[in-house]
Amino acid sequence: MAKRLSNAFLTNLGMTTPIIQAPMTGYVSEAMVVAVSNAGGLGSLPATLLPPDTISESIAALRKRTQGPIAVNFLAHSAATPDADRDAVWRARLAPFFDELGLERDTQPPSPMTVPVFGEAQCAALERARPDVVSFHLGLPAEHFVARLKAIRATILSSATTVPEARWLEEHRCDAIIAQGLEAGGHRGSFLSTDLAEQGGTMALVPQIVDAVRVPVVASGGIGDARGVAAAIALGASAVQLGTAFLFCPEAQVPLPYREALRKARGMDTVVTTIYSGLPARVIANRFTRALRDAQDDMVAFPFGIAAVAPLVGASLKAGSSDIAPLWAGQGVGFGQSIGAGELVRRLSAAA
Amino acid sequence: MAKRLSNAFLTNLGMTTPIIQAPMTGYVSEAMVVAVSNAGGLGSLPATLLPPDTISESIAALRKRTQGPIAVNFLAHSAATPDADRDAVWRARLAPFFDELGLERDTQPPSPMTVPVFGEAQCAALERARPDVVSFHLGLPAEHFVARLKAIRATILSSATTVPEARWLEEHRCDAIIAQGLEAGGHRGSFLSTDLAEQGGTMALVPQIVDAVRVPVVASGGIGDARGVAAAIALGASAVQLGTAFLFCPEAQVPLPYREALRKARGMDTVVTTIYSGLPARVIANRFTRALRDAQDDMVAFPFGIAAVAPLVGASLKAGSSDIAPLWAGQGVGFGQSIGAGELVRRLSAAA
Repeated sequence: MAKRLSNAFLTNLGMTTPIIQAPMTGYVSEAMVVAVSNAGGLGSLPATLLPPDTISESIAALRKRTQGPIAVNFLAHSAATPDADRDAVWRARLAPFFDELGLERDTQPPSPMTVPVFGEAQCAALERARPDVVSFHLGLPAEHFVARLKAIRATILSSATTVPEARWLEEHRCDAIIAQGLEAGGHRGSFLSTDLAEQGGTMALVPQIVDAVRVPVVASGGIGDARGVAAAIALGASAVQLGTAFLFCPEAQVPLPYREALRKARGMDTVVTTIYSGLPARVIANRFTRALRDAQDDMVAFPFGIAAVAPLVGASLKAGSSDIAPLWAGQGVGFGQSIGAGELVRRLSAAA
Repeated sequence: MAKRLSNAFLTNLGMTTPIIQAPMTGYVSEAMVVAVSNAGGLGSLPATLLPPDTISESIAALRKRTQGPIAVNFLAHSAATPDADRDAVWRARLAPFFDELGLERDTQPPSPMTVPVFGEAQCAALERARPDVVSFHLGLPAEHFVARLKAIRATILSSATTVPEARWLEEHRCDAIIAQGLEAGGHRGSFLSTDLAEQGGTMALVPQIVDAVRVPVVASGGIGDARGVAAAIALGASAVQLGTAFLFCPEAQVPLPYREALRKARGMDTVVTTIYSGLPARVIANRFTRALRDAQDDMVAFPFGIAAVAPLVGASLKAGSSDIAPLWAGQGVGFGQSIGAGELVRRLSAAA
């Protein structure tokens, strides 16, 4: 392990332990990023929903609280075209839930993220703030943006769910690749194919990607404790990225019903569904995923699905229920412990 | 690793390396079992289709060629009831393939294995031959048979695809549990639920089963080389079971078109399908799995699906094609190398 800890990926970033906290839009606090980076890992700030000015301010605020490396994360999806017919079919599917919660069926807000979230303003903000790492999900932004991030010496990360995606990311100048196994919670990072049948478990995927590319590989998916970290290193990974484990930390901004569901869940209580956004994502199964299990063919495209369910999610959480909200979690959810993020990093590192 | 190699599971069986060759009905030769056991691993003889007399003869023949431990394997499914209506629907689905190959549609043989394959004759044969290990798939046989196998001091193994299955097996006197991750090739060992959504990748499943039971755990699924073996040990497994890797060995009795398909396949070319038997199994995708992908709701129950496709499988393989036959393989298929089974055991052990 001493040898592994001296791997170039960690050394270059000033990490002393191979633990990356996954950026989880909506649930990561500044305190979490600081705790992880101060413990020698890499904390990640989700910036997809931040206004550009706030991005540089947030990074500056983090810099004051940690000497460790900081990652900033964005979704890198393409522009989406609405489909009114499909939208109507899907909203009809959701109508009974609107009625149940006493919500007007036409209260849906406009869909967010219908244009790429990473543009000139975001790139300029990063050029000002100079984060150590910029990580993406769902591919990479346009090549000229990648070139500008390279110019400020940011390390660029993105997720691959297949070997072809890993090769694509390397060809498009990614500095390290997150191999996201099928066990992982939240949105699949797939951008060349969303066919789940083509996507592998972490045990099979990580060494295949290690063999296929020259850049360092970060393992993710189903890793919940120090045993998983050690296993990922044995498979050839230079580091691991965990999301679900960090949702249990007090630093996570997790609504109470979601937090309760996390505590009760076991690994095999999760399912992959498209119903929360239009793209496949792993969540703890609840009444909503079961009710719409066979309705996914009617699903609107990403990101229109987010707006379609937003009023339901907000109202049900507010009512104290985890029956409808997306309970993002991976198959390692059963390993979760309610401990501080810094302590979690130390425990994950212990056996590694 | 030295500590691991002295684990009680291996010591009790006289194994010097934590490698188990999976029993793969129809593809394992006596030479393969001998090579694996002579290399310090555990070779497994698939006995599901053997007449009882042949079982004891085969074990006696193996005993003459190796001092190492020997496992004998059986399916442990329950009796099945035919459903003529369902059968007719499924045969209609298959009809175009019969026509294409110029086969009479009514040439299907009677379905094998409609009664449990493990009965009095099999148990008596094992009492005579006294194998070191008896391994099962799809659960366990009736309790009185398990008691008789215990009485001859056979170590009893079976597969779990979920934590509840692992607990069930331990309660029913299994001596060690094979944690079969979703990456694994061939039939899922599931016997309490065949819902794939409830089944985990190896990375998440193995430590959860290790935590849930007191007996030793054997990891399987997506393990293709020494890295995977080391990772499985890190997750807490006492040993690993590999199937796909052994199909590449010259000792495997694999029809040429199947062997060619194995050589060409990458990990993510596999899919889980029920069309070859009625139960979920992972195979390399081919024209047949793609054509019937959306027809699985019409599928007959196990084992009736085996007889339904048997003429197609035989005729297409005979014609040199891998378009229709079940190309059993796990997501680690891309790691396969055409080396002898003994050499494979040594290479898998090397890094562990």
